Amino acid sequence: MSRAQNIFYAHSGGVTSVINATASGVIQEARRRKNDLGKVLIGKNGILGALEEQLIDADQLSQAEVEALTYTPASAFGSCRYKLKSLDENRREYERLIEVFKAHNIGTFFYNGGNDSQDTAHKVWQMSIAMDYPLTCIGIPKTIDNDLPHTDCCPGFGSVAKYVATSIMEASFDVASMAASSTKVFILEVMGRHAGWITAAGGLASKTDAMGPHILLFPEIPFHPDECLAKVKACVEAYGFCSIVASEGIRNVSGKFIAEGQRKDAFGHRQLGGVAPILAAMIQDQLHLKQHWAVADYLQRSARHIASQTDVDQAFALGQSAVNAARAGQNGVMMCIERTSHSPYQWAVGSVPLASVANIERTLPADFIREDGFHITPKARTYLLPLIQGEAFPPFSNGLPDYQHFSLDCLEKTLGAS
Amino acid sequence: MSRAQNIFYAHSGGVTSVINATASGVIQEARRRKNDLGKVLIGKNGILGALEEQLIDADQLSQAEVEALTYTPASAFGSCRYKLKSLDENRREYERLIEVFKAHNIGTFFYNGGNDSQDTAHKVWQMSIAMDYPLTCIGIPKTIDNDLPHTDCCPGFGSVAKYVATSIMEASFDVASMAASSTKVFILEVMGRHAGWITAAGGLASKTDAMGPHILLFPEIPFHPDECLAKVKACVEAYGFCSIVASEGIRNVSGKFIAEGQRKDAFGHRQLGGVAPILAAMIQDQLHLKQHWAVADYLQRSARHIASQTDVDQAFALGQSAVNAARAGQNGVMMCIERTSHSPYQWAVGSVPLASVANIERTLPADFIREDGFHITPKARTYLLPLIQGEAFPPFSNGLPDYQHFSLDCLEKTLGAS
Repeated sequence: MSRAQNIFYAHSGGVTSVINATASGVIQEARRRKNDLGKVLIGKNGILGALEEQLIDADQLSQAEVEALTYTPASAFGSCRYKLKSLDENRREYERLIEVFKAHNIGTFFYNGGNDSQDTAHKVWQMSIAMDYPLTCIGIPKTIDNDLPHTDCCPGFGSVAKYVATSIMEASFDVASMAASSTKVFILEVMGRHAGWITAAGGLASKTDAMGPHILLFPEIPFHPDECLAKVKACVEAYGFCSIVASEGIRNVSGKFIAEGQRKDAFGHRQLGGVAPILAAMIQDQLHLKQHWAVADYLQRSARHIASQTDVDQAFALGQSAVNAARAGQNGVMMCIERTSHSPYQWAVGSVPLASVANIERTLPADFIREDGFHITPKARTYLLPLIQGEAFPPFSNGLPDYQHFSLDCLEKTLGAS
Repeated sequence: MSRAQNIFYAHSGGVTSVINATASGVIQEARRRKNDLGKVLIGKNGILGALEEQLIDADQLSQAEVEALTYTPASAFGSCRYKLKSLDENRREYERLIEVFKAHNIGTFFYNGGNDSQDTAHKVWQMSIAMDYPLTCIGIPKTIDNDLPHTDCCPGFGSVAKYVATSIMEASFDVASMAASSTKVFILEVMGRHAGWITAAGGLASKTDAMGPHILLFPEIPFHPDECLAKVKACVEAYGFCSIVASEGIRNVSGKFIAEGQRKDAFGHRQLGGVAPILAAMIQDQLHLKQHWAVADYLQRSARHIASQTDVDQAFALGQSAVNAARAGQNGVMMCIERTSHSPYQWAVGSVPLASVANIERTLPADFIREDGFHITPKARTYLLPLIQGEAFPPFSNGLPDYQHFSLDCLEKTLGAS
């Protein structure tokens, strides 16, 4: 049979402020190459769109809309938290995918997500081989957690890094000016369940020891309340105030999350949140210092208004390059960012085998964390700084970002329900 | 005796992202008028600087530094939460102020703050008359709460409004794209203890009913859990998700804060925070909907990176005008913003008697709140929209806002301790 022409593209997992820029890169490059690639069909709500045969034909987007994707946060097509089971557990689901791909002449599968999604892309590839359906499977990285291996960084992270560093810098200025008679400690809780990349990025704001954040609490470092409180006290004595960036994922010495919730998400991960108020209560009760706390939660990952230009550029380039990798016959790979120089910062897009990526979490290297465990090293700064360079402000209209709402139709279904 | 020449200027209460712009306006205008006004002496840590004779001579700031004040958040000189007691309770404190003013040839007192501070300015003015010390007392408004009467708006508010509207817009895009399989409700907790202006500003993000925020929880409206939960459920059914902006100050029908803390600040106000997690737990337990929550806390009031140009302009103009009001012989007044036209938006600086301002809180007018209590009216939009116009992005350096740190010396003391 002749090779199917169309591309299926889907977002997966938590969205970012630049994942639509990757979509824009895919669509724009596919349009440019339309003589040898077919349509781009996008999954409504990620992989669920394939399972439920809800496919959005990208042709319905005007060129202006495709460009608006580069500055509109979150997913214009919907994403999902849905992990395909193993082949043994649910073979039917994989067969259904291939069925839908066949029905829509899909020969290329781009899956844009984090660790779990790269694992899914890998499994779909293996299944397509087992089922003898020729399918090009390419993963495109995306995760604010920056914890995928074999890529220098992950789209979405640079913008969160810029948001968190900017926010803790601003809050530190605030507390510094109030500390003589009021709040002396400020805690910003950030995402990054198992990897301290986002927490580390907060450290970029402290250009001098005095400025803050003075303390970073990484998920990689067991949390010792007494050591932390002693450090807080020392900072308040030395600088008049203390500002802290705390990962939602900090744990005690027995590995238990400080803020352990009762609920789990679709991937079976515990839902966290609420480290900051726990730390605040500890500081109040033990040190009797006035404190304030913030939890950035989704604000950090959707803050397109303070996105990093580097991040937007990389997100776009990865989408673009995935199209060309598929054209060049690459398969079973994840596109990645390769850093070719720190200063001046230079990067290129490459690819790595999906098999080497799936389900591996890249935590913060030990030499990125200062010896006392409470801050980053110069090496971490060298790595992080290039990723927040450039301000990719969105257009504004009437005082607010002019993000676009897309009202998109799905193709008519050709199959019955799965 | 000849009238003292120098100006004493101080910040008071919680800082904002534009209060330094007011300082810049005062200093620049005083420099321009230096033939008829003396030095600008600034209180280190607000009024405490006067009580402790810690005065910063603004002459030590270069012109470039004075300009950098317009884009540096919080207070370059320190602010404080310190309320002067009544004359009966602590006459000595007022006498001390006048002593310090005398010692430093201060004939003009500019106090830049919110309700409590306008009250202090008013008391100091009365004392100066009682003590027969000729003193020009002028209040300059500042409060993110926007709750001062007799001014169309308060510097600091427009920028918080822009931050909150932008942030809830971004988070709403995020939740909308995840809701099919994941988070369905998002709650952003904002400041505004007794007045719902900041909460109302969040409503600007919902350009259509579907977009979010779908629900605003005002401190002016008693919180009925059942009504709120029914509304959340209806939104999720209608739009697939529900995003909420909740004031930290919402109360139940008996007037008790939903998130009542145990601690009080220096003005005797209860410290609040933590409404969002309480609402989240309610939504989880009663509706079994997955939710996320954020608490913006100081991030909202220090977010100079997304300041409103209108707000910066007004903050600067109020400082500038205070100098000219003093020159023109005005006394016992607060400078204010007068709106002369909604569309096109036009404004001017005026003044009102301090006596009419002190300790009056302006809450959200009833006709700014939709009949069901859960959103704003078109009238509120007409009022709010002009205040968030224009993007006053700060300069960036190496990926982060280039806010300035000032290392400022105090004048040598001439008096003993108070």
